[in-house]
Amino acid sequence: MSGQGLTDTIESLRLHFGDRLSTADAVREHHGHDMSRQPTRMPDAVVYVENEDEVARVVSACFASGIPVTPFAAGSSMEGHTIPLKGGISLDLTRMNRILAVNNADMDAQVQAGVTRKQLNAHIRDTGLFFPIDPGADASLGGMASTRASGTTAVRYGTMRENVLALRVVTPEGKIITTGRRTRKSSTGYDLTKLFVGAEGTLGVITEVTVKLHPIPETIASAVCSFATMRGAVEAVVATIQSGIPVARIEFLDEVAVEAANRHAGLSLKVAPTLFLEFHGSPRWVEEQSTTVREIADEFGGSDFAWSTRTEERERLWKARHETIYSNQTLRPGCKAFTTDVCVPISRLADSVMAAREDIDSSFLIGKIIGHVGDGNFHVGYLIKPEIPEELAEAERLAERLYQRAMDMGGTFSGEHGIGISKLKYLRREHGEAVDMMNAIKAALDPRGIMNPGKLGQVE
Amino acid sequence: MSGQGLTDTIESLRLHFGDRLSTADAVREHHGHDMSRQPTRMPDAVVYVENEDEVARVVSACFASGIPVTPFAAGSSMEGHTIPLKGGISLDLTRMNRILAVNNADMDAQVQAGVTRKQLNAHIRDTGLFFPIDPGADASLGGMASTRASGTTAVRYGTMRENVLALRVVTPEGKIITTGRRTRKSSTGYDLTKLFVGAEGTLGVITEVTVKLHPIPETIASAVCSFATMRGAVEAVVATIQSGIPVARIEFLDEVAVEAANRHAGLSLKVAPTLFLEFHGSPRWVEEQSTTVREIADEFGGSDFAWSTRTEERERLWKARHETIYSNQTLRPGCKAFTTDVCVPISRLADSVMAAREDIDSSFLIGKIIGHVGDGNFHVGYLIKPEIPEELAEAERLAERLYQRAMDMGGTFSGEHGIGISKLKYLRREHGEAVDMMNAIKAALDPRGIMNPGKLGQVE
Repeated sequence: MSGQGLTDTIESLRLHFGDRLSTADAVREHHGHDMSRQPTRMPDAVVYVENEDEVARVVSACFASGIPVTPFAAGSSMEGHTIPLKGGISLDLTRMNRILAVNNADMDAQVQAGVTRKQLNAHIRDTGLFFPIDPGADASLGGMASTRASGTTAVRYGTMRENVLALRVVTPEGKIITTGRRTRKSSTGYDLTKLFVGAEGTLGVITEVTVKLHPIPETIASAVCSFATMRGAVEAVVATIQSGIPVARIEFLDEVAVEAANRHAGLSLKVAPTLFLEFHGSPRWVEEQSTTVREIADEFGGSDFAWSTRTEERERLWKARHETIYSNQTLRPGCKAFTTDVCVPISRLADSVMAAREDIDSSFLIGKIIGHVGDGNFHVGYLIKPEIPEELAEAERLAERLYQRAMDMGGTFSGEHGIGISKLKYLRREHGEAVDMMNAIKAALDPRGIMNPGKLGQVE
Repeated sequence: MSGQGLTDTIESLRLHFGDRLSTADAVREHHGHDMSRQPTRMPDAVVYVENEDEVARVVSACFASGIPVTPFAAGSSMEGHTIPLKGGISLDLTRMNRILAVNNADMDAQVQAGVTRKQLNAHIRDTGLFFPIDPGADASLGGMASTRASGTTAVRYGTMRENVLALRVVTPEGKIITTGRRTRKSSTGYDLTKLFVGAEGTLGVITEVTVKLHPIPETIASAVCSFATMRGAVEAVVATIQSGIPVARIEFLDEVAVEAANRHAGLSLKVAPTLFLEFHGSPRWVEEQSTTVREIADEFGGSDFAWSTRTEERERLWKARHETIYSNQTLRPGCKAFTTDVCVPISRLADSVMAAREDIDSSFLIGKIIGHVGDGNFHVGYLIKPEIPEELAEAERLAERLYQRAMDMGGTFSGEHGIGISKLKYLRREHGEAVDMMNAIKAALDPRGIMNPGKLGQVE
């Protein structure tokens, strides 16, 4: 993006925003990358907005001149969502971090889009409620809505799709609208809330998010169980889900991931395919769930099933799980993780995970598999040095096989990270002619194509 | 709709469909009304389609000539959705009633749009799975998706919004697309599935529905509890939901509804505000849930809390609940129910129900209140003789107050019946400028406005 229109727009916005508009290199660089391996692309300017009227002001100005707008907050995207591919304005929502309302009785909260998940949970600590969705990073709720994020608890509490009740949105033309109501059900009109959840910032700017909260369970028990074989571990997951037991978390780590967790978090888990589990409920109910899952695990070669309701033990375990993303250095110093994200019908989970492991084993790369397996969702991380072209190419080859196989099994090329930039090429493979309908919606709602251009909504 | 284009299109379709295209008055009359109190409006012709290619054939022909198409199956809409307001073709999907796949391991089923909920449950009886969503009528799954239907179990299992995984859809231009995947999660692309769920047949024709199934609980216990006051009953519901107990059903009947149920179904319930409950789970877990809810009920003036795991007792109870719609005659022979449908945040449920009762008590009409109160959703039925203008006008006046009050409380003018015809006037009151976005989506996806015209998507 360049030219007089851009310069004029930036200068006119500067009149309002003063030093909350920045064209400094360091600021633009910060807004030009995220947690993905996508190359940096700097915006022309960064604007720090403080309320939705200011968002509307920026978007209206950009609409008038056809200037790209890309929302930004925590910058924790795994797929380049916040990278302003076509330049223009990076709209920084981090200062829109007010918690507007917590309705204890209705178990919901209304927050500005820049509020992070940990901030929300800290704020509501004394209400007896919590917000369960936990992607690895301390992401913003606007960003989590935009990528349809989830995490370890989706198997019990759902993803952002199920937990966002309503939104405030600035449309690409600069109007402010409300989508949805706080009610648990409604049958009135097209589900615009769900349209914006997962739209990756391409249809407008989410300024407020109303989310469901959930009662903190009376008892939380965690369990770890190692398995003789990877297939055994995965099949125990499938049997658990099919039994209808409402496990709160059921995470798989392969041997490589367990070793990384041991080294990074100082655990001493047996180096074997392992499930981390969590049960929520009354003391008796938690014990009953745990007993049943232990019996299931036994059937599939599980051993050393250890469960505990002690908070410290549980927190150490889940911290290790969440930090697997940071544990790669202990496996291969100087490496970066080439992260992937697939989700398959649970009947295909064992085949899918086994095939991914075989791919790694027959490659020269190191790779680990972790997953929110109760949903059929898992990640293969290839630990590469991206500056070595052969390693990058090999990771790309394996990822391509992983994604295509998931789609061939009726699965999807993203369970929770979203599409971003490099995976756009898979959209038509998965959705076929439905992509034309997505493009038509984008063209109708964003006729000048200013919202996060070059991504979802403009796909061949 | 009239003119040469219409005649030509009907005749050209007749070449393919033969006697599966009908212009007979009796057939057109059947397709010109539903379970609502909307006046009959006959289509110009009815086409009985047998597969999605035939749907595409009809829609393509209508697209070419700008002829309205209105999908029809069970005809059980409560709000006139299937009434072809502008004439044209009524597309009868009742012969598309094949169950295409039941995936036991993945707990999902793929069915043609004309399959009804009871048909699906009969088919899967031996799998250990069930499909929980139960509007009063034996509706088709395509229709249930289109109205975002729910019923008594939504408090535990969600509505069609949460239970539809994927769809096959014929677009207004006659293309066949697939929306979504069978996976439990996906972050790839705009959520077209959720866009069609609740679109009331205005964006295309749903031809196949993939729904989640759920494990049949090991134990099902039902309970009935009567309360000294209506407020006590409703507040017991609120406290139960806030406690996090996963009740499977929690239904409220006011005194008038209880009396109707007693007379119609031969029950002998105490004539008082009453909750019908159901608990799903293991025997111990069900007992624990029931005990806790009983304690909550006691706090709010509940008495005669009776619970049972006996199938016959439970079925008789729920049959009475489901048939409350047919029980009106016992209260006032010759009457018809003027049915309403609101949903409010649960913190406002008691106020909302109490105000509705006060409205009835201060009117000359008889009315009853029943509700899926765990979701904040309830129905007021005014038992009127619609041929008496004063009664109809009074019902409309009370309904208007009910809807406006729900919206003022942050609620919605439909929890589960949808908008249809007569409630379109509330759409902008509830959604404001978001209605413009709905209209833009409709215009983009259905540029000739042929899909179920005169309803959602074309609102001032």
